[in-house]
Amino acid sequence: MATASVYLSGEWKPSSGLKTFQAHNPTTGEVIGDPYPISNWTDMEQALQSASECDLITRDWSGDRFAGLLEAYASQLENRGDEIVEQANLETALPVTPRLKGAEFPRTLAQLRAAAQAARSGEWAMPVIDQANNIRSMYRSIGPVFVIGPNNFPLAFNGISGGDFAAAVAAGNPVIVKAHPAHPGTTRLMAECLVNALMAVNFPANFIQLIYEVAPEEGLKAIRDSRIAAVGFTGSQKAGIAIKAAADKAGKPVYVEMSSINPVFVLPGTLAEKSDAFAEEFTGSCLMGSGQFCTNPGLVILPPGNETAKWIENVRDRFANAKSGPLLTEGVKDSLLDSIQNLVKGGAELLTGGHAAKDIGGAAQNTLLCVDAEKFLADSDLFQQEAFGNCSLIVKTSDPDQMTAIAQSLEGQLTGCVYLTDQPEDEAIYQQLEPILRRRVGRLINNKMPTGVAVSPAMNHGGPFPATGHPGFTAVGIPASIRRFSMLECYDNVPEHRLPIALRNA
Amino acid sequence: MATASVYLSGEWKPSSGLKTFQAHNPTTGEVIGDPYPISNWTDMEQALQSASECDLITRDWSGDRFAGLLEAYASQLENRGDEIVEQANLETALPVTPRLKGAEFPRTLAQLRAAAQAARSGEWAMPVIDQANNIRSMYRSIGPVFVIGPNNFPLAFNGISGGDFAAAVAAGNPVIVKAHPAHPGTTRLMAECLVNALMAVNFPANFIQLIYEVAPEEGLKAIRDSRIAAVGFTGSQKAGIAIKAAADKAGKPVYVEMSSINPVFVLPGTLAEKSDAFAEEFTGSCLMGSGQFCTNPGLVILPPGNETAKWIENVRDRFANAKSGPLLTEGVKDSLLDSIQNLVKGGAELLTGGHAAKDIGGAAQNTLLCVDAEKFLADSDLFQQEAFGNCSLIVKTSDPDQMTAIAQSLEGQLTGCVYLTDQPEDEAIYQQLEPILRRRVGRLINNKMPTGVAVSPAMNHGGPFPATGHPGFTAVGIPASIRRFSMLECYDNVPEHRLPIALRNA
Repeated sequence: MATASVYLSGEWKPSSGLKTFQAHNPTTGEVIGDPYPISNWTDMEQALQSASECDLITRDWSGDRFAGLLEAYASQLENRGDEIVEQANLETALPVTPRLKGAEFPRTLAQLRAAAQAARSGEWAMPVIDQANNIRSMYRSIGPVFVIGPNNFPLAFNGISGGDFAAAVAAGNPVIVKAHPAHPGTTRLMAECLVNALMAVNFPANFIQLIYEVAPEEGLKAIRDSRIAAVGFTGSQKAGIAIKAAADKAGKPVYVEMSSINPVFVLPGTLAEKSDAFAEEFTGSCLMGSGQFCTNPGLVILPPGNETAKWIENVRDRFANAKSGPLLTEGVKDSLLDSIQNLVKGGAELLTGGHAAKDIGGAAQNTLLCVDAEKFLADSDLFQQEAFGNCSLIVKTSDPDQMTAIAQSLEGQLTGCVYLTDQPEDEAIYQQLEPILRRRVGRLINNKMPTGVAVSPAMNHGGPFPATGHPGFTAVGIPASIRRFSMLECYDNVPEHRLPIALRNA
Repeated sequence: MATASVYLSGEWKPSSGLKTFQAHNPTTGEVIGDPYPISNWTDMEQALQSASECDLITRDWSGDRFAGLLEAYASQLENRGDEIVEQANLETALPVTPRLKGAEFPRTLAQLRAAAQAARSGEWAMPVIDQANNIRSMYRSIGPVFVIGPNNFPLAFNGISGGDFAAAVAAGNPVIVKAHPAHPGTTRLMAECLVNALMAVNFPANFIQLIYEVAPEEGLKAIRDSRIAAVGFTGSQKAGIAIKAAADKAGKPVYVEMSSINPVFVLPGTLAEKSDAFAEEFTGSCLMGSGQFCTNPGLVILPPGNETAKWIENVRDRFANAKSGPLLTEGVKDSLLDSIQNLVKGGAELLTGGHAAKDIGGAAQNTLLCVDAEKFLADSDLFQQEAFGNCSLIVKTSDPDQMTAIAQSLEGQLTGCVYLTDQPEDEAIYQQLEPILRRRVGRLINNKMPTGVAVSPAMNHGGPFPATGHPGFTAVGIPASIRRFSMLECYDNVPEHRLPIALRNA
């Protein structure tokens, strides 16, 4: 089998990197598809140079043109939808239905088209015209963006098709993509669609470039390079922090979406009124997609009372009886089992699961752990380590003050849920808990699970560190997500004919 | 003389720090006023704890209340305007007229009142309501902000009264101020006004806290502390980079406004049409306030031609004949003279000045240097080091490509000016230069000097690194400057009565 080509400088060509990797079928562990190259600095240098040359051509193009590209791309993807979904299923073991075909693929198209619409309207750029002082400003493209995608959404967060990609293009920036090595075949199919789209709308063929993998030190070198203007990353905390540090030191915008355990606080009324329905809802959210969501509910804080033990038993049974699905990669499985071991070593009780699933190759047993509030609070750094996958940790409290103390001990999170009724007891606890929780989460949710990140202009898929690097930005939610990949440009005393069109009087 | 008190936990009290410093009259070098304390960690710990307690009380208050505070403060300042201006003149040697009384003090009041108006309207928070999905979001207060002010604007950028202060308060955040040690008496007077204002509008007395100085390592420790939510800084690149690194590592928003040499590109038409008027304009901008502005024009790039030598001679004579004013501190003078020496060592020709002024204690001679483009480009890192003060470096080019190459070699800047006519030759050069210059500056100016940062919603007083830490934010320009000190809060499925008022349907 020939090693797959990278897409650099507007051409599919062999990588200069000599090393390769292959994708694996998560269900069987078998190698699938071609070898893919691990790019070296020669590839990166070419990508950087080409992106910066392209940028000089496209940077002043109208939003309409970037909209046209995004729409042409969505149409190209639509033409090959079944093939893409099938390949993604092969590489990730995420189910075709309902997940890939029913939800993630349509979402991907919708995001690209929403970004196109925003690029066309131009409102994201927030033009401000002060005629009296003849000072004008707006957000405009920033330059080549490096987008690094995660393992868990082969379509909707893929570096070549996801939210960061769509936002960076809508802002008018050339993009260099590093796809995730867990699904290179899916990425390649989409890149082929994108190359067609570039041609169809007369874009420079090097507006987008793709590599499949690169050694971390060369990726960081590219991030420090002056030809990269901004970085978008979704993935692990370890990688995200290294990327953020490199970009921060070079003084360039970096948007990293990292770990989050998405605490769910359960107030007494919920267990009294709808214990079983809540158990079902929680189990569904936690085990869906083998729990491999940024917003997976990894921590559940329960009130004291007779209902609590019953609810735990209910959920434990549901976890034990639900079939566990394969995880995305061997690495995800190993990391999940390690994380579970750490929680157990720290003193968490294993209620069910905790080991590799024997019947399915790449799966871990659905795992439920439990710890009491005193123990959690005594070592909250340990107990809030993310265990990415089909696993959750229950914390049993003996009074509402402990709930507040747990909220207080949490690092920044993407989401925080509170399940409660309108009963005065619940409302009183909420009033105490909410101010503490509010500042620690990007999205505060009532009576709904955190999985399911609606594509809405009001969405915040972001949050305080270490969930992301800055609590003022969201990765989902157009137009705000677009502004991340822009700079504020001000024009002072510049005559009409030298202004961007959006800043002219006429 | 008794050591001045700090204002911590809502009280004027002695600092726990044992070391002190005193301000100096820049004109005479004489010590003036009381000794002021250098705070230690005990002071900082108290400030952090008190700010975080206050935040729990004030964080959900309406914008109206923060507006009321800012307005009450502006009125209190107005009552003591003459005293404040006189003290600022004593400590900085900046002239009462036209600078302090005529411009900076009214600007300070105007900024506080504009921030108040924005806090009251609430538009800065950009509420987004998606009723169909019942998802809502807006920018809201982030928590205690540490504001660190510069030496060069004792009023309009003072940590206790300037743009960062006004923005942080308008967003609803308690503020810990570290004033600049060059003008502690001015800061104290304004703090007294602020304490009166807090009382007048029934704010917690600890909503604002003030220290005068702190050792860098303890300042950085405070920045890393989880009780500080965000940081605003204006000052030197060295301090700014240390502050940014500490905040970045802790994953919190930090806004540093650092060095900038504010290049002025002069196209041939300007020298042909209005050489003398441009020489006068440039000299005024460069020497005003002894050149101690973030937006001082420190680099002038000239076209080839017969007019060039004449213009240089004209400006050299103007620099030589203009009286040089005292610099803010001995440190500023030493640093300016060192920077000039470095430029000369690097090969710049000293056209005039370069030494301490003999007739005025704290002044340096007005200094004009010159280098040709080849030399500049061969060592552009050296030649673009800021020489803060009444000094500028001329670069002589021999063709428009050299201008573009110089623009290409520049680090991020607050501003970039182009002087040109509407003649085709100038327009053609502009078309080549603008795309390169545009991305390197926050504010692009035509035919106007960069000094004078209008208080306009369209203003961008920011720019790419190292002018600031992020090219998407401005320190001047309400409402954008307010959003810096906020986080994006999203509410998902939260019923009406638990929503912030701005996000309710009604």
